[in-house]
Amino acid sequence: MKAVLAYSGGLDTSVCVKLLQDKYACDVVTVTVDVGVAQDELREAEEKAEKLGVVRHITIDAKEEFAREYIFRAIKANASYEGYPLSTALARPLIATKVVEVAKEEEAEALAHGATGKGNDQFRFEAVFRSLAPEMEIIAPVRELNLTRKDSIKYAKKMGIPVPVEIDKPYSVDENLWGRSIEGGILEDPSAVPPEEIYQWTKVTKEEAEDVEVEFEKGVPVALNGEKLSPVELVERMNAIAGSHGVGRIDMIEDRILGIKARENYECPAAVALIKAHKQLEHLVLTRLELKFKAAVEQEWSELVYNGLWTEPLRIDLDAFIDKTQDRVTGKVKLRLHSGSCRVVSRSSPYALYSERLASFDDVTLDQRSVEGMLRYHALQASLYQKLRKD
Amino acid sequence: MKAVLAYSGGLDTSVCVKLLQDKYACDVVTVTVDVGVAQDELREAEEKAEKLGVVRHITIDAKEEFAREYIFRAIKANASYEGYPLSTALARPLIATKVVEVAKEEEAEALAHGATGKGNDQFRFEAVFRSLAPEMEIIAPVRELNLTRKDSIKYAKKMGIPVPVEIDKPYSVDENLWGRSIEGGILEDPSAVPPEEIYQWTKVTKEEAEDVEVEFEKGVPVALNGEKLSPVELVERMNAIAGSHGVGRIDMIEDRILGIKARENYECPAAVALIKAHKQLEHLVLTRLELKFKAAVEQEWSELVYNGLWTEPLRIDLDAFIDKTQDRVTGKVKLRLHSGSCRVVSRSSPYALYSERLASFDDVTLDQRSVEGMLRYHALQASLYQKLRKD
Amino acid sequence: MKAVLAYSGGLDTSVCVKLLQDKYACDVVTVTVDVGVAQDELREAEEKAEKLGVVRHITIDAKEEFAREYIFRAIKANASYEGYPLSTALARPLIATKVVEVAKEEEAEALAHGATGKGNDQFRFEAVFRSLAPEMEIIAPVRELNLTRKDSIKYAKKMGIPVPVEIDKPYSVDENLWGRSIEGGILEDPSAVPPEEIYQWTKVTKEEAEDVEVEFEKGVPVALNGEKLSPVELVERMNAIAGSHGVGRIDMIEDRILGIKARENYECPAAVALIKAHKQLEHLVLTRLELKFKAAVEQEWSELVYNGLWTEPLRIDLDAFIDKTQDRVTGKVKLRLHSGSCRVVSRSSPYALYSERLASFDDVTLDQRSVEGMLRYHALQASLYQKLRKD
Amino acid sequence: MKAVLAYSGGLDTSVCVKLLQDKYACDVVTVTVDVGVAQDELREAEEKAEKLGVVRHITIDAKEEFAREYIFRAIKANASYEGYPLSTALARPLIATKVVEVAKEEEAEALAHGATGKGNDQFRFEAVFRSLAPEMEIIAPVRELNLTRKDSIKYAKKMGIPVPVEIDKPYSVDENLWGRSIEGGILEDPSAVPPEEIYQWTKVTKEEAEDVEVEFEKGVPVALNGEKLSPVELVERMNAIAGSHGVGRIDMIEDRILGIKARENYECPAAVALIKAHKQLEHLVLTRLELKFKAAVEQEWSELVYNGLWTEPLRIDLDAFIDKTQDRVTGKVKLRLHSGSCRVVSRSSPYALYSERLASFDDVTLDQRSVEGMLRYHALQASLYQKLRKD
Repeated sequence: MKAVLAYSGGLDTSVCVKLLQDKYACDVVTVTVDVGVAQDELREAEEKAEKLGVVRHITIDAKEEFAREYIFRAIKANASYEGYPLSTALARPLIATKVVEVAKEEEAEALAHGATGKGNDQFRFEAVFRSLAPEMEIIAPVRELNLTRKDSIKYAKKMGIPVPVEIDKPYSVDENLWGRSIEGGILEDPSAVPPEEIYQWTKVTKEEAEDVEVEFEKGVPVALNGEKLSPVELVERMNAIAGSHGVGRIDMIEDRILGIKARENYECPAAVALIKAHKQLEHLVLTRLELKFKAAVEQEWSELVYNGLWTEPLRIDLDAFIDKTQDRVTGKVKLRLHSGSCRVVSRSSPYALYSERLASFDDVTLDQRSVEGMLRYHALQASLYQKLRKD
Repeated sequence: MKAVLAYSGGLDTSVCVKLLQDKYACDVVTVTVDVGVAQDELREAEEKAEKLGVVRHITIDAKEEFAREYIFRAIKANASYEGYPLSTALARPLIATKVVEVAKEEEAEALAHGATGKGNDQFRFEAVFRSLAPEMEIIAPVRELNLTRKDSIKYAKKMGIPVPVEIDKPYSVDENLWGRSIEGGILEDPSAVPPEEIYQWTKVTKEEAEDVEVEFEKGVPVALNGEKLSPVELVERMNAIAGSHGVGRIDMIEDRILGIKARENYECPAAVALIKAHKQLEHLVLTRLELKFKAAVEQEWSELVYNGLWTEPLRIDLDAFIDKTQDRVTGKVKLRLHSGSCRVVSRSSPYALYSERLASFDDVTLDQRSVEGMLRYHALQASLYQKLRKD
Repeated sequence: MKAVLAYSGGLDTSVCVKLLQDKYACDVVTVTVDVGVAQDELREAEEKAEKLGVVRHITIDAKEEFAREYIFRAIKANASYEGYPLSTALARPLIATKVVEVAKEEEAEALAHGATGKGNDQFRFEAVFRSLAPEMEIIAPVRELNLTRKDSIKYAKKMGIPVPVEIDKPYSVDENLWGRSIEGGILEDPSAVPPEEIYQWTKVTKEEAEDVEVEFEKGVPVALNGEKLSPVELVERMNAIAGSHGVGRIDMIEDRILGIKARENYECPAAVALIKAHKQLEHLVLTRLELKFKAAVEQEWSELVYNGLWTEPLRIDLDAFIDKTQDRVTGKVKLRLHSGSCRVVSRSSPYALYSERLASFDDVTLDQRSVEGMLRYHALQASLYQKLRKD
Repeated sequence: MKAVLAYSGGLDTSVCVKLLQDKYACDVVTVTVDVGVAQDELREAEEKAEKLGVVRHITIDAKEEFAREYIFRAIKANASYEGYPLSTALARPLIATKVVEVAKEEEAEALAHGATGKGNDQFRFEAVFRSLAPEMEIIAPVRELNLTRKDSIKYAKKMGIPVPVEIDKPYSVDENLWGRSIEGGILEDPSAVPPEEIYQWTKVTKEEAEDVEVEFEKGVPVALNGEKLSPVELVERMNAIAGSHGVGRIDMIEDRILGIKARENYECPAAVALIKAHKQLEHLVLTRLELKFKAAVEQEWSELVYNGLWTEPLRIDLDAFIDKTQDRVTGKVKLRLHSGSCRVVSRSSPYALYSERLASFDDVTLDQRSVEGMLRYHALQASLYQKLRKD
């Protein structure tokens, strides 16, 4: 049987290659999808895969697609699941889709991933696998063989898979263009203050506050400080700038798909900064009714994506709503970054629903008396209720 | 006719005293409700009122009631209207209620306030007035006479009302225990970066990061750094600590009740810090389903209170829901404050739904294979949908 | 000044013609928009307008547009405001839009309507007027002159406007393709059982139960009992069939826009039958997640339209969501009509997410044991909660 | 090992007794919880259990508790999951709770139920089992042995368990005080019109329309046609009356917990009639804001109960909200029942927010002009939006 495996080059998925060959008698095709990792990691993954005896290794550069079709949708949706901007969650469906595409080209019979049976990623991979290739078998060796991390290391040593030195470090890290997650070890204790060493992207290296102007067109960022940038460049640039002010650290309790509460740490400088700017621009151009209802849409969208339900039609329906609202989300927002804080200090848009004449308390063109009727009806039912209560 | 006026001692309400006497032929009783203003302001208000010839001036200390019955409800509701923690909005119904109580004792025929016809406060005062005293007349001199700020100053000078020197400063400020709002002048322009001078409560006076431990019991804060404090003391203390790290600045576009968009600036150090801590504690003890639904309850509660509908029965119904959820919101949260940033770094509770055994990827007591059935059904309908799409 | 008046030919709008001429010194252009009224009423309106001395009378046949662009949207949205299928509410924005179009052609300065100051229609007319022609004046003579129905009759008699004989009947009726509303007299008392005489469209004239098959394509009905029909024909046909079984009576308490509760009676046979059928078809083809979220969208859509906010961008955003969901709402539904009852007895669709294999308790292709893992996690947090409660 | 089994006396649970003895080596205690079944069925269950050799059989009369603590909560919540009033769903947690109570008294080690691995009841039983007795083992023989209905019959015959004659009838029926469900056979086909024979409770036996007056106190029914009745009597009486007019048939597509769509048929005469009456009374006494938000609460409550999550704290939180709203839901509603149709024709309450003076178009105490200011602001943002669109 030929199986296509989502392959990162790390220990877990390297172990999976061997398990697929050894325990499942598979010919293995490995696919590494680049959603924003270091170029040397990609080369390493390729070399490692070949050493492990795969029948083929494929590297797919999906950064542009990730930025345009996933990250930019997340910005338009102000993506947040309980405070988490969905960095890993967002990349999984894209990776799974690429794995399915390769499997179809390769005429494979099985799709494989290295996720465990306790986490979220198994749901995200398999939801896409089952949706796009219901006829193919799914193999999840780590879960199906009930392996702990210790078991994996033992097996790796036995099979001659190189175990990285930093394996002693207890942290499990996942990185892509949209953020970095750090799990494991002492971080599993919700009351433990995270040691500074876990942070890579968010260190204060600039003493002074810095202002950054973000320009949006139809809901997506197109320029920083007046310089037009491609989606990938823009997100990378923002990660660098906001990260250098320590912006983007998230330390939270998260409800995993299974209902397990876990303590999670993230570094998402661009996500935090761009979504903050995007939200303020929306407050300038969307109506109050749109803002209120869109908040419910955003919560639903974020939960779907967190749960790996990228292929669920409701996600697509919600995107139709969101896209419609973004027609007017064009303009500029100035962020002030300083020592971990990020706040909006200025915003403007050709589609602003703001009217100085209406808003100003010094303006006289609007007769204040015109509001009187409204006051009479504002709390009408509340008044009737209070009256009945007293009678 | 005897009228009871909500009196702050400022220019606008001082002008109202004279207008009520002059244009409405009223005997005026002034009421100053202390919801957390400087003690010398209260004394000044009293002296000023007497000079203006009121038939009686009453000062009511409502700080404790404000903290317990209003601010603490706002914390339990994680109050936020489009990002604004409702500082002024929260105080108005309490002030209005006190005015009604005085009016009933004084057997007055009318209730008066100094709000204009463009803002939110007229709605907040009058909703309570109409609910609690539907039989009384309401007088809103500034709106009814369509006075601008310039008109008021002119009238004040004519009537010998002392006009403060800082009247040249274009900012209109409102302060109470829960926050400080700054409006007017250049701040009305959404694209203008606010000058540093507008900030009083949030200036970075401490260089180093500082950790503060907040202890909650049933959803409300009871101690800071291990020291039990009364509600008023605790909020004041938190305003001082968080403010000294520049935490609590809010710069936003806000949809006023009338539908007018306005740019608003707030300083709410305690509100920002305490609600952040409260939310994280909830994430540790409430179920995922509770967290999701409570978010909708919070949005509705905040909108009602923003709109001045404190007397609306839905607000009371929502509080019944909220109070039920808060039974278990007991525990400790550590906040790290630094140069405008405020984040949670640790949390613990005897009611935590967190289980290390369940969450840890190293634990073996839970067989990973037990999840397999769930994966089969997770995206069942999405898969059926995708299959139909392709056929 | 030239004013364009939305003119029905009834007493109220006839009085308005004279008032506009008499009290406002206007040249009056009358517009009667046909959204499904009897042809002789249109002719009468024209004759009456001419007798009243209008400078021009225009009749616009908007039935097709009403059915396609308004009623069909309402079906897709399962429109219901507190149980009311929005018949009158749906027609007002279309009528108002046509009035604005005529006013622009006629280069008029004012837009006029005959609605009172207590009801909903003033909001619906004026929201469209202000949105599409903010530069034009709005005249609402009945409200501005504070006329009661008695005042209008008196004025009509004085001005020689023919007062219909049935004016003694206390009922005020509004009819269009989507339904008929009956108000006034004894019906204003919520506890009064409505007399049979108020019903015109819903009388049981067929003794036996009757089945009707409705065919939908992309969310809208296209055929009845296998016969393809134009939108207008289809709705008319369904009104006749369902009405002949007494289906479509609605007797309710309704919260008007002002917050006033009113008792309302409606006859909406086609609306009740078609929306019931449409909903059941959706239950066959939409996912559970879509059905749940769409219910919230429907509530919001219906409230917006009830409130006359057809021009609000949120309405347009919600329609983008709804349209996306309707792509698959294609299929057939059989309704059984009998003596006021209407229920679905059969439904089918090429896009059904139903699978006999999955649903049947007799089928063996799905191993029942596969669900076991899911049960373990289903109430995980509830169990942790209950455990803490007991400890 | 001693196991306590939820026992109905039917084929499936009788088979389970034998399986528990035979395949699981258990001493079996059977518990039959009476939530409104015929008294002879209870006796039969007892006799059958004894013949099957149980160590003890216990019959628990829980009708009163079911009506007061479950059905009445459902009425207050206007319970409806996609149109299903939750009859079976509502009884399961009560039955499961009683089974746990017996198991604790009996010092049993296991809890057992006869539900299959495809339906909803396994979730409902086990959610309560795991919440209230996490230390006990759960045995679900039919699912764990992957038995189809055919397998069960074969095993029953082999083990000498009496197989009822009507086993040839393909319908699977569940009944309790709150409704009757009919599944299986041709009914599994969504396009098959159900044969009349499946209905037992809803047959038109009265030719003429009949009016029934329901009296509510704090949200629950207390009298029919002026006669005070106990909760159980009242529901039974209403089932008889509404059923005799054919009211209460529900034919629907339902999304089961697993995500499987199934066609379901129910007869719920009392549920349909009482909830219709209750809703209309709420429309008379609750504010518009309460009605809108309560609709979201009801949807969530119904979904939780459908999913068997009676022990989830969110259910308890929602009940706190609901109970608060019901304080004023006191009054009388008249229903007209006829040939399958049921509609409200009259309602009254001492807490009505209805005001004839406000609602009537003939009344003059309210100056119509007072509304003018409100109209100016009603569509303010929509107008600004439309203006920008055109520019």
